[in-house]
Amino acid sequence: MSPVKIDVYSLLARLRERRPLVHHLTNWVTIYDCANVVKVLGASPVMAHAREEVAQMTGLAQALVLNIGTLTPDLVAAMEIAALSANAQGIPVILDACGAGATTLRDEACFRLLGAVKIGILKGNASEIARLAGEDVVTRGVDAAPVKQDLLALAQGLAKARQATVVITGAQDLVADGHKHYRILNGHPLMAQVVGTGCMAASIIGAFAAVEPDLADAAAAALVCFGVAAEVAAAGAGGPGTFKEKLFDALYHLDRQTLEQRQRVEA
Amino acid sequence: MSPVKIDVYSLLARLRERRPLVHHLTNWVTIYDCANVVKVLGASPVMAHAREEVAQMTGLAQALVLNIGTLTPDLVAAMEIAALSANAQGIPVILDACGAGATTLRDEACFRLLGAVKIGILKGNASEIARLAGEDVVTRGVDAAPVKQDLLALAQGLAKARQATVVITGAQDLVADGHKHYRILNGHPLMAQVVGTGCMAASIIGAFAAVEPDLADAAAAALVCFGVAAEVAAAGAGGPGTFKEKLFDALYHLDRQTLEQRQRVEA
Amino acid sequence: MSPVKIDVYSLLARLRERRPLVHHLTNWVTIYDCANVVKVLGASPVMAHAREEVAQMTGLAQALVLNIGTLTPDLVAAMEIAALSANAQGIPVILDACGAGATTLRDEACFRLLGAVKIGILKGNASEIARLAGEDVVTRGVDAAPVKQDLLALAQGLAKARQATVVITGAQDLVADGHKHYRILNGHPLMAQVVGTGCMAASIIGAFAAVEPDLADAAAAALVCFGVAAEVAAAGAGGPGTFKEKLFDALYHLDRQTLEQRQRVEA
Repeated sequence: MSPVKIDVYSLLARLRERRPLVHHLTNWVTIYDCANVVKVLGASPVMAHAREEVAQMTGLAQALVLNIGTLTPDLVAAMEIAALSANAQGIPVILDACGAGATTLRDEACFRLLGAVKIGILKGNASEIARLAGEDVVTRGVDAAPVKQDLLALAQGLAKARQATVVITGAQDLVADGHKHYRILNGHPLMAQVVGTGCMAASIIGAFAAVEPDLADAAAAALVCFGVAAEVAAAGAGGPGTFKEKLFDALYHLDRQTLEQRQRVEA
Repeated sequence: MSPVKIDVYSLLARLRERRPLVHHLTNWVTIYDCANVVKVLGASPVMAHAREEVAQMTGLAQALVLNIGTLTPDLVAAMEIAALSANAQGIPVILDACGAGATTLRDEACFRLLGAVKIGILKGNASEIARLAGEDVVTRGVDAAPVKQDLLALAQGLAKARQATVVITGAQDLVADGHKHYRILNGHPLMAQVVGTGCMAASIIGAFAAVEPDLADAAAAALVCFGVAAEVAAAGAGGPGTFKEKLFDALYHLDRQTLEQRQRVEA
Repeated sequence: MSPVKIDVYSLLARLRERRPLVHHLTNWVTIYDCANVVKVLGASPVMAHAREEVAQMTGLAQALVLNIGTLTPDLVAAMEIAALSANAQGIPVILDACGAGATTLRDEACFRLLGAVKIGILKGNASEIARLAGEDVVTRGVDAAPVKQDLLALAQGLAKARQATVVITGAQDLVADGHKHYRILNGHPLMAQVVGTGCMAASIIGAFAAVEPDLADAAAAALVCFGVAAEVAAAGAGGPGTFKEKLFDALYHLDRQTLEQRQRVEA
């Protein structure tokens, strides 16, 4: 891969201007962080999971984020209803395969959703994505287990098989659709030392996908913003606790100059 | 309206002395913030939603806060049981109509509760309250949509129709019962840039309503405290993330001098 | 009691090296804090509560933490399934009896779990533990009510009756099994001024129990770490909000020197 420049700030400015509504059905651990990261970025989050209202709530939204971190069968059923509503109106669906590879319930939920609805962006860590690509790997709860394959080939293969954009998060983030790919080098090690950054990444991707139809570009821009904000936040943080609060501050203040100076993307 | 002075600190001192127990059935996004804001203010929060225990838990409490932010039909049924218990023992019930006007489920939940139990304080943003007053407005998830009517007239009308104290939060907060009203000018724009402040407002109102039988006075005092604390917190914050942590600090340290110097209320 | 020295840092170093997976079924208020405190300490948290997956998830873990803070009958049923899985593979189960003594549902949940599965560590505040020992005391929501008995005798008696390690948290923390006991004097008053520290204590205990088979030693070491980190955090905090973020930072940075200088344990 070689360095490439993408106009991240223009997408961020569009997001801040349009303030898209991003509907989530997510987990109970990081639900606040998912909502807040969308808010401080400049968009509008809404969390709603009752099957009686999810289709209607998705009908107000410009993107739908699904995260199976603390799934139950009822919640997955509601996700399917919401995703069908999203598909019907042509807004993107992002699936964070949180904990895929750890239990059968999580694997089956992902495969069920992938079979029943159109997932625009499929996001996970290395072992979650490997599991969804059919590999025999056991995710350690929600922490990635080592994966043997080349991660880019893994993302590209799954993208083609599922006709989706695939995102693998980690020390470096990979984005691939059937035609192109990005490697995002921004970020900071503290992101892996605090709960919630993986889920927040999916929510930010959802907010960008709400305003940019090229989902690979949307995901790459989102991950650059998140990684750059993490670099800024880490510079002033005393550890993972204060880091996370400063991460919200940094996302809120992200400007063109900071993004252009720090952006590190390869294609 | 013209400036008016209310003795906010005396109510806060009473709250800190009595440490009332404030029972919540609330949403899963801001449940921590709702509990913590009550705690740092000097009262005691408890969150319990199982229909098997809510009546008994409310029986230990001095106020009940209901928030439909992530409602399900089961949760609303538990809210009704808890509210009946609150009514039976004469403690105030605060309803935060979070997302009313966004979906039918939310509207119906509010109307069901308003019909089945006595709600002492009905709180929402402009479009949530307009919807409950029968207006044809669509709330944008949980963010207020523009409302045509005069907000004070809206609050006063609904207060009379429902024999409740009505609170409309926003850049300025309005409190109205059938006889009097307050406009609270305290606060800071950062409150609208972070998830949770709306829900926290309802919880603080609940804590004050637990120690002050005049519910309009209780709500006004609560909103002054919250707004003043936000002003103090914003002065030292680097953005919405650090602002929210400093908001807890500021509520914890609120004293008579700060409240009297900064209070801005009209009646 | 007289001062005693325990090698807390060696246990912490073991925890950081092994990074045990700590499975939680916990409450929706502090679920993030429970996960994050395990993460910043150096272990790996996972939260999963669907009865369809809890046995399998526990099968990947090295300890199981149960917290009934926002219980429902369904959740307690899932806790029992998870605990049976933990018992079968010989990993420790920690029960945080959050709100025992407040409602019949909470009492019955604890007694049911104590009867159906092996609980290695039973943890609560004074009135929660008194209630589980059969005393007629009413917990104030989740805040301790005054207890007449000598707390050490209470802990020791319940430890023998239930063949478990019993932990009573408070201004001083007590740990007792059938043979020995510790009193931990570390900590800071701000811990009682913010929501979540009680639940976080149980999660830290779970992380230590995952790497140390002597459960009283594990609990004592966990409480020393937590208390020392709180002392460090409080020194730089402006109130309960910033204190909690700095608490995560302090746990992340805990080193041998700080622990040895500050440790205050009696036996």
